[in-house]
Amino acid sequence: MSRVTRHRARIKSAIVLLSGGLDSATTLYDAKNKGYQTYCLIFDYGQRHRKEIKQAIKIAERSKSSYHLVKIAMPWQGSALLDKNIPLPKNRVDISGEIPVTYVPARNIIFLSFAASYAEAINAKAIFIGVNAVDYSGYPDCRPEFYEAYQKVLKTGLKVGAEGKIIRIYTPLIRKTKAQIIKLGRKLKTPYNLTWSCYKGGKKPCGRCDSCLLRQKGFDEAGMRDPIT
Amino acid sequence: MSRVTRHRARIKSAIVLLSGGLDSATTLYDAKNKGYQTYCLIFDYGQRHRKEIKQAIKIAERSKSSYHLVKIAMPWQGSALLDKNIPLPKNRVDISGEIPVTYVPARNIIFLSFAASYAEAINAKAIFIGVNAVDYSGYPDCRPEFYEAYQKVLKTGLKVGAEGKIIRIYTPLIRKTKAQIIKLGRKLKTPYNLTWSCYKGGKKPCGRCDSCLLRQKGFDEAGMRDPIT
Repeated sequence: MSRVTRHRARIKSAIVLLSGGLDSATTLYDAKNKGYQTYCLIFDYGQRHRKEIKQAIKIAERSKSSYHLVKIAMPWQGSALLDKNIPLPKNRVDISGEIPVTYVPARNIIFLSFAASYAEAINAKAIFIGVNAVDYSGYPDCRPEFYEAYQKVLKTGLKVGAEGKIIRIYTPLIRKTKAQIIKLGRKLKTPYNLTWSCYKGGKKPCGRCDSCLLRQKGFDEAGMRDPIT
Repeated sequence: MSRVTRHRARIKSAIVLLSGGLDSATTLYDAKNKGYQTYCLIFDYGQRHRKEIKQAIKIAERSKSSYHLVKIAMPWQGSALLDKNIPLPKNRVDISGEIPVTYVPARNIIFLSFAASYAEAINAKAIFIGVNAVDYSGYPDCRPEFYEAYQKVLKTGLKVGAEGKIIRIYTPLIRKTKAQIIKLGRKLKTPYNLTWSCYKGGKKPCGRCDSCLLRQKGFDEAGMRDPIT
C-alpha cells in the first residue's frame, strides 16, 4: 500500500446537511472536530428568501468543506416557509408543543434521502443533521424515533447496507438546548457571524419571528452576544 | 353535511410513482381499480433519455390522473442509468442476485420522500410504488424489509403520523413475476402500448438490454404479444 493510499484509507467522510442557520453550522464544525472530511448539502427548496442559502455557501467555504447546492421543487407547498400567502407567526411566547405553520411536509425525509444518495456515491460513512428535539418539539421530523427509523431505511435500502456496511446518521444536537448548542459552537469556533436564522430575508434579522426569538434566548442563556445583532 | 362534502369525504387519494415503465403503469391501474383518485409523481432525475418521461406523462393523462413532473438533480451520479460513461449491460442471461450497474444510489428512498411530502400536502392516504423483488432481487430498495422500514419513517416523521393518521405504502407487485404483472395489467386494461422499458431511448426498444429482455420474457411467459414490438 502506497503512502497516498494509506492516507486515503484513513480519511473518513461525512455528509452534512447545511441550512445556513446556527444549528447546522454548529453541526458542521462538530463533524470536522470529530475528524471527518465534510461534504455539505445545501438545498434550494423554494424558501421565502435566498439569504440563508447564500450564508450556507459562505459557511461551507469558510470551513473548507466541499459542497453541493441541490435545487428541489415541492410544487404542492403547504407551509409558511414556502408559501408567501401563509403569514409567519411572530412574538409568540411558547413555541413548543404544537406543529407550527412553518412545518414543510417531509422536509427532513427528503433532505436525508439526498444525503443518503450522496453518501453512498462518495463512500461516506456518516450523515450529520443538526436537528433538535428540545426547542422544536413541534416538528415530528426532529424526534429521535424518526432518526432510528431512518437509520433502518439506510440499512435495508442501500447497496452499501446490503453489503453489510452502514452509513450512520448523527444528530449531535438533538437533546441540547439552544444555549448548550451555542456554547458548543463557540468552543468549536463556528463562525456565527455568517449564520442566519431569521425567517425573513432582510438586511438585519427581524427580531420577532420564532426563529429570531429562539436564537436571542439561546445567546442570552449562554451569556454571549450574538455577533449578527 | 352537504352532498358535495359527503362525496369529497368518500374519495380516497393515492400518490403513484410513475416511471413510464410497465410495472409502474400496472401499479397505477391497480390503484385506480382499488378506488383511489390517483396523483402521479414523475421524476426527471437525469435519466439517459427523455422517452420514459414522455411516456409517463401520456400514461398519466390516459388514466385521467393528476400528475406532477419533479426535476431532481443527483450531481454525484454513480450509476449507468445516469452516467453515459458507464456502459449498459446487454444480453445477460441471469440478471438476478447481484446489484446491477444500473443501480442509482438511494433512488427509491428519494422518490418515496417526495411522495410522502405530496401525500401529506394533499391529504392522500396511500403511496403506490411498482417495485418488484422477484425479477430485480439485485436492487436493495426493492426488498419488502426496506418498505417496512420506510413505513415506520412515515409514521414517526410526518405531521399526519404524529397525529395518529398513517400514510400507507403499497407495493402491489413486490412478489409477482413479470408474467403475473402483465396478466394483472391486461385485466386492468393498462395501456401497455404507451409504456417504455428499454434503457435506451431509441425509436424502438433495443431488445438487448436487461430491461428489454425481462419484458420480453414476461410477455412470452404470459402468452401475450407485446404491443410495442
